[in-house]
Amino acid sequence: MDRIKYAPYKDKVQTPEKAALLIKNRDVLGVSGFTKAGDSKTVLPQVAERALYEDLKVTVLSGASLGYDTDADLAKNGALYKRMPFQADPTLRKSINNHEVLYVDQHLGQTADMLQSIDTFKIDVAIIEAVAVTEEGYIIPTTSVGNSPIFTEKADKIIIEINKTFPETLAGVHDVKFLKKQPHRDVIPIRDPDTRIGVPYIKIDPEKVAAIVFTEVPDSPAVIAAPDEKTTAISNHILGFLEKEVDEGRLTESLLPLQAGIGKTANAILSGFTKSRFKNLTMYSEVLQDSTFELFDSGKLVFASASSITVTEECSRRVFGDFEKYKDKLVLRPQNISNAAEVISRLGVIGINTAIEFDIYGNVNSTHITGTKMMNGIGGSGDFARNGYLSIFACPSMSKGGKISHIVPMVSHTDHTEHDVDILVTEQGLADIRGLAPIERARVIIENCVHPEYKEQLTQYFEEAYKQGGHTPHILQKAFSWHTRFKNQGTMKIQEYADDHA
Amino acid sequence: MDRIKYAPYKDKVQTPEKAALLIKNRDVLGVSGFTKAGDSKTVLPQVAERALYEDLKVTVLSGASLGYDTDADLAKNGALYKRMPFQADPTLRKSINNHEVLYVDQHLGQTADMLQSIDTFKIDVAIIEAVAVTEEGYIIPTTSVGNSPIFTEKADKIIIEINKTFPETLAGVHDVKFLKKQPHRDVIPIRDPDTRIGVPYIKIDPEKVAAIVFTEVPDSPAVIAAPDEKTTAISNHILGFLEKEVDEGRLTESLLPLQAGIGKTANAILSGFTKSRFKNLTMYSEVLQDSTFELFDSGKLVFASASSITVTEECSRRVFGDFEKYKDKLVLRPQNISNAAEVISRLGVIGINTAIEFDIYGNVNSTHITGTKMMNGIGGSGDFARNGYLSIFACPSMSKGGKISHIVPMVSHTDHTEHDVDILVTEQGLADIRGLAPIERARVIIENCVHPEYKEQLTQYFEEAYKQGGHTPHILQKAFSWHTRFKNQGTMKIQEYADDHA
Ligand SMILES: CC(C)(COP(=O)(O)OP(=O)(O)OC[C@H]1O[C@@H](n2cnc3c(N)ncnc32)[C@H](O)[C@@H]1OP(=O)(O)O)[C@@H](O)C(=O)NCCC(=O)NCCS
Ligand SMILES: CC(C)(COP(=O)(O)OP(=O)(O)OC[C@H]1O[C@@H](n2cnc3c(N)ncnc32)[C@H](O)[C@@H]1OP(=O)(O)O)[C@@H](O)C(=O)NCCC(=O)NCCS
Repeated sequence: MDRIKYAPYKDKVQTPEKAALLIKNRDVLGVSGFTKAGDSKTVLPQVAERALYEDLKVTVLSGASLGYDTDADLAKNGALYKRMPFQADPTLRKSINNHEVLYVDQHLGQTADMLQSIDTFKIDVAIIEAVAVTEEGYIIPTTSVGNSPIFTEKADKIIIEINKTFPETLAGVHDVKFLKKQPHRDVIPIRDPDTRIGVPYIKIDPEKVAAIVFTEVPDSPAVIAAPDEKTTAISNHILGFLEKEVDEGRLTESLLPLQAGIGKTANAILSGFTKSRFKNLTMYSEVLQDSTFELFDSGKLVFASASSITVTEECSRRVFGDFEKYKDKLVLRPQNISNAAEVISRLGVIGINTAIEFDIYGNVNSTHITGTKMMNGIGGSGDFARNGYLSIFACPSMSKGGKISHIVPMVSHTDHTEHDVDILVTEQGLADIRGLAPIERARVIIENCVHPEYKEQLTQYFEEAYKQGGHTPHILQKAFSWHTRFKNQGTMKIQEYADDHA
Repeated sequence: MDRIKYAPYKDKVQTPEKAALLIKNRDVLGVSGFTKAGDSKTVLPQVAERALYEDLKVTVLSGASLGYDTDADLAKNGALYKRMPFQADPTLRKSINNHEVLYVDQHLGQTADMLQSIDTFKIDVAIIEAVAVTEEGYIIPTTSVGNSPIFTEKADKIIIEINKTFPETLAGVHDVKFLKKQPHRDVIPIRDPDTRIGVPYIKIDPEKVAAIVFTEVPDSPAVIAAPDEKTTAISNHILGFLEKEVDEGRLTESLLPLQAGIGKTANAILSGFTKSRFKNLTMYSEVLQDSTFELFDSGKLVFASASSITVTEECSRRVFGDFEKYKDKLVLRPQNISNAAEVISRLGVIGINTAIEFDIYGNVNSTHITGTKMMNGIGGSGDFARNGYLSIFACPSMSKGGKISHIVPMVSHTDHTEHDVDILVTEQGLADIRGLAPIERARVIIENCVHPEYKEQLTQYFEEAYKQGGHTPHILQKAFSWHTRFKNQGTMKIQEYADDHA
């Protein structure tokens, strides 16, 4: 109870079951949570539960993906009408691909803008995890800020979920600033990753608070595969490239602020920096994984700005067990600021993200398996790729025992266009396509990134297309033949080339 | 001679022929000129001329497209190795599509950044059109600023081309500010379209000036078709949509700063505002066409910011004949500021651009005919679409007597992804796809934008794809069948549906 420093809230405390009754059929919910961090652990799951027994279908907007089985249960129990702007859950994914749930896959930096510019999404109820409530009744978030400021601003009612598993020392790490709707928007005066421009809590109208619940469930731990041969090779190619940039005088040894996507590839890449010659590194990212804390501990990293902290169980104990150790090196921001075009372009962020596939001309697919099935979503990758100093995309050259080549003639879905991609890298090597025309790009991508087992086959496609002419040579009838071959025959490989190579 | 106010330059004056001799084989040239405005009229054409008789192949970077036949002659005479970041010339286009010229199609706002971040492009010689030279030897540009600041900064040598056909009263309309390379980049403190942040000239090192020439050739006049039934219908749909936004309280009657692309569709759309109820409009755009001055004259527009002025002969006489009348309502900026993500997002620009085609899920192709052949380039459309408040794309629903539907199952090239497009409009109607999932978008796009002659055929594709499932339903084997049918049979139409409709 001492986490509620605003007396009038004390009689709003209730059980999650009861709080969840505030949510009605067809409501639009704005919930905290960003890549499994800082999400609602008891109220939102109760919504899923209720949907088992009654007519309850809601739209759920979040920061990014939610933890545990919340998204899965909401989907499985038919509680979801629409979901945005991001998810990463296998069950929900299935419902999306079966057309049971409508999904709006959105740049993470732009949801708040959309909510300001259109009123289609009213936000009936905001459900926000907090570490505590201030004397004024304001919310101190936990491990993510996400879209919580805009949700609470737009919401009719607010449910606060106080999570006692996080130490109160988290207070102070957040930096919250509301951006006004244009034409009243002002400069976002962040000049360095560590610039603070706001207040360490989310200012809300206490009148809107309809319920407060307590929970003792920690964030669902991230599970991250250790770096392996492939991801280490990718990391080394990127480090080698950046070292060359430093040697040739284009960057200094502290580089520029780094952003890294989520998942094992991104984590391995960042881990690689611990053994690099770079120093005084900073991050201006959206999610911080274990590798960020490795970098702090190794003395390489001096500051990290993001919207959330998503770490493994072990790392969580280390970080939140002695949070004072890291607190002055961290800031957590709303995602429309961590991912703001203005700040990313000013700071010159080096964005490192993972691709599902990319093509010979440098277009990147981050979201769709064989052009149709949603994987997770674009997340913040487009915010950084579009406006940063360098936009790097990485993935393995090949997977599923060679049945999939991640470099294809034409991506089956485009999330990042040729205009927005600078560097492509696989365990095979790295292609620097800045300032290159499409046919130049094709040559360097095939040469440097493609697995030997697919090189001849891809060269063949390019040569045949090249003969037909055009700035961006393609044979439209065959552009997706690799994907359809995979679908129909279980492999992208053309037998004759595979035989040749064997 | 009185246009050269810096004495030491006086003995650098020479003929264009002689000045052009400063350019050597394999040089990289940075030339002024943005959508035919403010380009080199005598020196650069001499480079083309020389290439007829000697081994001379250069890389040409400009602001955007050049006027007259300069790009055509450079291409025809084999003078071009590489060209960037934009062109719009039929002859050059052909050379690009024949692989005779390498072309790098780039966001117009990002060329300066690229030049700062990589040294592949050294800029041997900058050729800059000027209305005059200041007492310090600095350049006062003519009708465009474009990339001239970064070109002169990076260049080894500078050739200034003083164009006497423009009145000296142009001086003062420009606002030039250099943006430092990250991490030293500061806030771009533009808070309104009329904010001035720099100086009205391009500061250069006078030591670099290798030659000055005089020319009396005016800008090549823009030729713009008058609004017709289709473009007027498109304009009316957009006006109707914006009126609704005002009625429902989402925008005020002065809207937000407008950006409009080049060409007859964009010009017609903007013209439509003269008869609208909106008032105190502003523009934060890259090019100003005739319609901007129509809007000034009708009292609807109070201020326009851009990087160039590209008008018809008649409009040119009107504007430059009495420039004082317009001068305090205009500012011309470098294109990395007119197109800066930071400013576009802060001001909340409403971007209106033209598409070559778009698809049922809201992806837009602005550059490639049937996926392979370059038309012009992406220009600044991506700078505005990605970071503005509203991103509108327009085109006719159908053309070439019904043989082409501009709404297709899948775009054959993606310049603007589903994540970056808000509004699609044809003469048939307007689709507001904000906050919609792909299958919702498909329904509203087919219903509102597609020509009746193609509606059934497109519905059929969507329904068949939908049955196969997936977040973004597609049948990859048929996704480009409309394009290949057009290529092989001269029409996108499937006979049975056409017969049905007839
Ligand atoms: C692209 C992305 C899915 C890669 O994630 P990852 O964990 O590194 O990737 P994996 O290699 O494990 O691939 C994920 C799955 O997709 C499958 N897959 C990937 N590419 C595929 C392809 N071209 N065809 C078919 N399946 C493919 C993999 O085989 C794997 O399937 P499995 O789980 O059955 O083994 C992930 O980074 C992402 O969602 N990115 C978009 C969001 C983003 O970039 N955010 C930025 C900051 S958070
Ligand atoms: C897209 C763009 C080419 C449209 O220009 P426009 O003048 O309105 O378009 P038009 O309808 O005259 O089309 C141009 C040509 O392409 C052809 N074309 C357009 N779409 C086509 C399609 N889907 N398939 C085949 N041909 C097509 C037209 O038929 C026309 O050919 P023609 O000259 O032989 O008649 C032009 O706006 C552009 O280059 N945009 C990209 C740059 C940009 O947006 N800049 C932003 C600010 S400057």
